[in-house]
Formats: sequence, structure tokens, C-alpha cells
Amino acid sequence: MTDQTERVRAVIDRWAQAIRDKDLPVILDAHPDDIVMFDVPPPLQSRGMDEYKATWDLFYQYSQGGPGSFELVDLTIHAGKDVAFAHALLKIGGPEPVCRLTLGLVQRDGQWLIQHEHHSTPTSE
Amino acid sequence: MTDQTERVRAVIDRWAQAIRDKDLPVILDAHPDDIVMFDVPPPLQSRGMDEYKATWDLFYQYSQGGPGSFELVDLTIHAGKDVAFAHALLKIGGPEPVCRLTLGLVQRDGQWLIQHEHHSTPTSE
Repeated sequence: MTDQTERVRAVIDRWAQAIRDKDLPVILDAHPDDIVMFDVPPPLQSRGMDEYKATWDLFYQYSQGGPGSFELVDLTIHAGKDVAFAHALLKIGGPEPVCRLTLGLVQRDGQWLIQHEHHSTPTSE
Repeated sequence: MTDQTERVRAVIDRWAQAIRDKDLPVILDAHPDDIVMFDVPPPLQSRGMDEYKATWDLFYQYSQGGPGSFELVDLTIHAGKDVAFAHALLKIGGPEPVCRLTLGLVQRDGQWLIQHEHHSTPTSE
């Protein structure tokens, strides 16, 4: 377990807690302007901070009322000096994982930033 | 553009070409035993080489006959010294991208390996 792994884990934990808290400014924090988001619902991709923010507006539109649930299961982090990625399953409002999450992070000016998110559920034919 | 970026790109290009060629041994090559795959259809995840191979058996079951199409669009690679990730859109048998792809790679014993794949399509409510 490297120091970088722990630093990346802290960024991910803070982001996930902000999602549960519905704290949009903290959710958006630690993301660069070139964020590329692949979310569960359409569109195919969202690029840049305005489009990234819109995905969370949509998420909360479908989860109004009640406390948020967004729990990472089996989180695995691979962290190098300036590039890292992580994958996990996601419990969202239920006891079993229903989503998959992959994050790509880059360290810029000494800060780890989430440059890429990929959230999905399996799609049957 | 770093040398590592070019080395990672070569691994991804070889893997994508093998998918188009339906060359299973080359598809499976450059993957470690701890591969974690999040595929388009269920299951939620596939872990290890046997389960990873099964996802490609399923893929070709649905694309029998005719040449395979598997074209990466807007491929972006972030490569450090020993950890890298990449994201792209995917054209599969049609003119427009329909899938999203994220790859996580690690360098072990001097070789870049694809430790994680996440393929998905957006899911409507």
C-alpha cells in the first residue's frame, strides 16, 4: 500500500461521501476541466464541468427525498506516481451491488484529480 | 506524448485488432490473472482469466458470421511510469459509437498489462 494509494483513496472517499450528502460543490471538487464522464443513463458521454454537473442534477432528480446511498464495494486502487485508476461495485439504495464504477485519476500540481468516471449497469439484449 | 503512452497505445491497438480478427489467444494475452472485467451484458463483473475468456465467447456468440467491427473513437491515454488508464467510445458493427470503454493498465516486469476493462452502453430508466 503506497502513500499515493492512500491519497487517492482519500479523494475517492471524500467524493463518495459528498454524493451521499448531496453536497454538489464537494462532488465537483477534485475534477479537472477535461473531466470525461460515462454515466449510467444517456447521453453516451459528458465532457467538461458543465456536462459533468448535469449528470448529478439528473441523479438527484431520480433520488429525491430520503438520505442518499452510494456505497463502494470491493474498491481496488492501482496508483502510480502521477496516474491512478480504481474500480468498485456500487450499492445504490439497496442491499446488493447494482452498478459498476471505474475512476481514472491524474496528479497535477501535487493534487490528485478525477479525470474520468465510468458508471454503468449491465445491459441485457 | 510519452514513451509509456506509445507503449500503452501499442498494447491497446494489438488487443483491439485481435478482437476484430477473432483471435482469442491474442485477445487474452497481455492480461494478468487478476483481470477484472465489467462487460456490457450480465454478469455484473467477471474476475480472473476463465471468466474473462467467457465474456468473449459470449461476444462472438452474438456476432457470428461476417467480419468483426470494434473501432475505438476518441481514445485518450493517461500513462505514468507503471500505471495507466484509457477511455474511448466504441463503434461495434455500425457507423456511430454505441459503447463506452475504459481500460486500466499496470506495468509488471517491464510489460504493460490490461488489469481492468469496463465496457458499457447507457441504460435508460
